[in-house]
Amino acid sequence: MKITVVRDILEANERIARQNKDLFDGSGTLVINLMSSPGAGKTTLLERTIDALKDELKMGVIEGDIQSSEDAERIAKKGIPVVQINTGGACHLDGNMIRDTLKEFDLEGLELLIVENVGNLVCPAEFKLGEDCKVMILSVTEGDDKPSKYPLMFRESEVLLVNKVDLLPYVDTSLERITRESLKINPALSIFELSCKTGQGMESWYQWLREKTRAKLGDVDL
Amino acid sequence: MKITVVRDILEANERIARQNKDLFDGSGTLVINLMSSPGAGKTTLLERTIDALKDELKMGVIEGDIQSSEDAERIAKKGIPVVQINTGGACHLDGNMIRDTLKEFDLEGLELLIVENVGNLVCPAEFKLGEDCKVMILSVTEGDDKPSKYPLMFRESEVLLVNKVDLLPYVDTSLERITRESLKINPALSIFELSCKTGQGMESWYQWLREKTRAKLGDVDL
Repeated sequence: MKITVVRDILEANERIARQNKDLFDGSGTLVINLMSSPGAGKTTLLERTIDALKDELKMGVIEGDIQSSEDAERIAKKGIPVVQINTGGACHLDGNMIRDTLKEFDLEGLELLIVENVGNLVCPAEFKLGEDCKVMILSVTEGDDKPSKYPLMFRESEVLLVNKVDLLPYVDTSLERITRESLKINPALSIFELSCKTGQGMESWYQWLREKTRAKLGDVDL
Repeated sequence: MKITVVRDILEANERIARQNKDLFDGSGTLVINLMSSPGAGKTTLLERTIDALKDELKMGVIEGDIQSSEDAERIAKKGIPVVQINTGGACHLDGNMIRDTLKEFDLEGLELLIVENVGNLVCPAEFKLGEDCKVMILSVTEGDDKPSKYPLMFRESEVLLVNKVDLLPYVDTSLERITRESLKINPALSIFELSCKTGQGMESWYQWLREKTRAKLGDVDL
């Protein structure tokens, strides 16, 4: 019975997510659903990414948190449009929550919208928001057994950002094992190793975002 | 409507959790529900704790994971009874899953049962298992903003283990802020700062477990 309930909720969500996607496709806005465990570095990645790209791309951010507006305040300092969603207990964002924020954005003028999901390596992977692609962050401090233990998120994501590589000398984590097991689950996964703190490896991620955003705008012109 | 569904599930769960608790109270078994984000160090903490206490306490472990039996295999090497639960997608354990494992244990001979929940800082805090107390781990690599962003788990826990303090020199995390904000949410919280890797601070945690286990056995004798 519980399984049926979950399936109904997921089906209703997919309908709304498709409507969101249609809107984003119409305006040519690339939408990224950014997911990770708590503390893997989602907000810091956003801050660095905005600094690097805001002069060339029209960006916006949706911040998802159970409560608090701390992350939205960090992003607002960067001078781009940001909306905070407080889920009030729910451990993931869903299509409906995203739809409710869209009136706050001028979609026609928005080229890249990044949605920071609630910090959770499980449920956010199950709920579509209307995004073009899911991007996940794994911090090297979380260990190299995460792909086999949380496979759904690795399967659903198009990009895996392995963050905090500056801490590799101090932890017992094998980058080789993370890569090998992630690709076993999802052979099409693009993997970038980087450190938001030192800046190492960030340029490849920016370049990936630039190309994706241009490709999405190109689709609209057709 | 969604809220009603969630409430029904939670109520049904609480009934089963109370039945589990009655069984554990009858046998004098102290039950700990161990929770954290993925990769904060739950299984390593268990390994160290078993090494330190298995000669003085009769211990058992329930391992909760979405899939894989990697953690149960690590614990089985220690020579104590362990049962693996695979939730098959669910992001938390519930009372029913625990009840299904109990036939695998000789409860009368068990003094301390530690349940390692699915790695998730959100949902596990909502589902009672029949435990005496919830213990949470926060790794210093997750940052010091976690109490304000995930308050329910800090509110529900009796103990907060701040792990990986050996990494403090390499991260921008304030122990003082973690302590201050955790106690603001839950003034009764016991906080231990430790490193499962170096062993620093572990003895206070062992001592807390010893005293709790003895107190539970004492209650049965009354």
